[in-house]
Amino acid sequence: MKKIGVIIPAGGAGTRMGSGSLKNSTTPPTLKQFAPLGGVPMLARVIEGFRRVAAGADIVVALPADRFDEWARLCMEHDVPPHKVCEGGATRFLSVQGALADLDADCEYIAVHDAARPLVSTELILRTFETARRHGSAIPVVALTDSVRRLNGDSSYPEDRAVLRGVQTPQVFRADILRAAYEKAAGDGFTDDATVVESVGYTVMLCEGERRNIKVTEPDDLIFARSLFER
Amino acid sequence: MKKIGVIIPAGGAGTRMGSGSLKNSTTPPTLKQFAPLGGVPMLARVIEGFRRVAAGADIVVALPADRFDEWARLCMEHDVPPHKVCEGGATRFLSVQGALADLDADCEYIAVHDAARPLVSTELILRTFETARRHGSAIPVVALTDSVRRLNGDSSYPEDRAVLRGVQTPQVFRADILRAAYEKAAGDGFTDDATVVESVGYTVMLCEGERRNIKVTEPDDLIFARSLFER
Repeated sequence: MKKIGVIIPAGGAGTRMGSGSLKNSTTPPTLKQFAPLGGVPMLARVIEGFRRVAAGADIVVALPADRFDEWARLCMEHDVPPHKVCEGGATRFLSVQGALADLDADCEYIAVHDAARPLVSTELILRTFETARRHGSAIPVVALTDSVRRLNGDSSYPEDRAVLRGVQTPQVFRADILRAAYEKAAGDGFTDDATVVESVGYTVMLCEGERRNIKVTEPDDLIFARSLFER
Repeated sequence: MKKIGVIIPAGGAGTRMGSGSLKNSTTPPTLKQFAPLGGVPMLARVIEGFRRVAAGADIVVALPADRFDEWARLCMEHDVPPHKVCEGGATRFLSVQGALADLDADCEYIAVHDAARPLVSTELILRTFETARRHGSAIPVVALTDSVRRLNGDSSYPEDRAVLRGVQTPQVFRADILRAAYEKAAGDGFTDDATVVESVGYTVMLCEGERRNIKVTEPDDLIFARSLFER
């Protein structure tokens, strides 16, 4: 297997989980990424997931600097596999950009994966790497369950959900493509890496995601993730 | 309160739950709508939910004819509140159209609710009825969690998910609007009632849905619904 790199942007404050930085709080609340899933922090589950597939991968986690000590303690406590830690930026784009600088220069493929998707399977990781090997990139997507409408000023209209897909991670790229995109891209408001890569003129290849690879955004999602994990 | 009607189309075979009609099976598998949630069939939870808000509502459930007996037994067993049962059609549109014919003629507002959304809250039911009272219709919607892409032949491009919404039920309408739409609409491929009403020239009003008001489509969804319910 080619040498691969894994970037896990986990620098967000996770305010939607009710765990944002509280200026007057002396004991900061738990980061969403540190919330336990089967007794182990979500972020540790993600690292273990990639380590299982690619034992030699170079893994970089972008965290808020004021969480480095807490994370180091959790890593000791839970025997988390080796990985690098770098300081997260103000946006997802800046976190990934910073992590890219810390990644070994000889990685040939790079996966970027949300810390908040702890249920990623070995099959999905393998599928994205295989797709990227053939096509230069791999963006896992899933069909949408609900009907979809588009807001249009004060009104709205229905969309054909059959041609829409929900976008997941890991998003995997040939390293030269991802590095070039993060060098050239203008702005830092991107919500995923596919759009960064596209913004500088590349096209991306979709592959099949997994419905249970949910993003833990709200407390209800954590309940869901825990019940899926327990199965 | 005005007299209200509730239509629950539950006529689908639910094949995605692995419970479709098997021609050679002598004991047909459980309908998704009959799957237990906290020990009580999902469909019964839905009926109880509406009965709690509107004790005098006229409730019509559209079911496959070959499930009438099974449902009658479940209603006895679980002491399900009173409601009417009619035969479901080959499509969602035909099921709702059939149920409309069985609904009391003096209902002033009509809610249509998926049998597969058993976690609908009292607050959401009240909000949709209040919105429909003011605006003639109420379509509950929620923000999308994942980024969204649109398929376009062999390629795809990103959509701005900020202007997209996932559509839920209950969808509530002034009775004359819903009845007129189901009389005039052409075709029967509609996936919800908002689009039926719009197809004959009405506009619809959106209101805030609830993320936990999920549609139970796949086995994982049932795990999620059960864990949410147990909370």
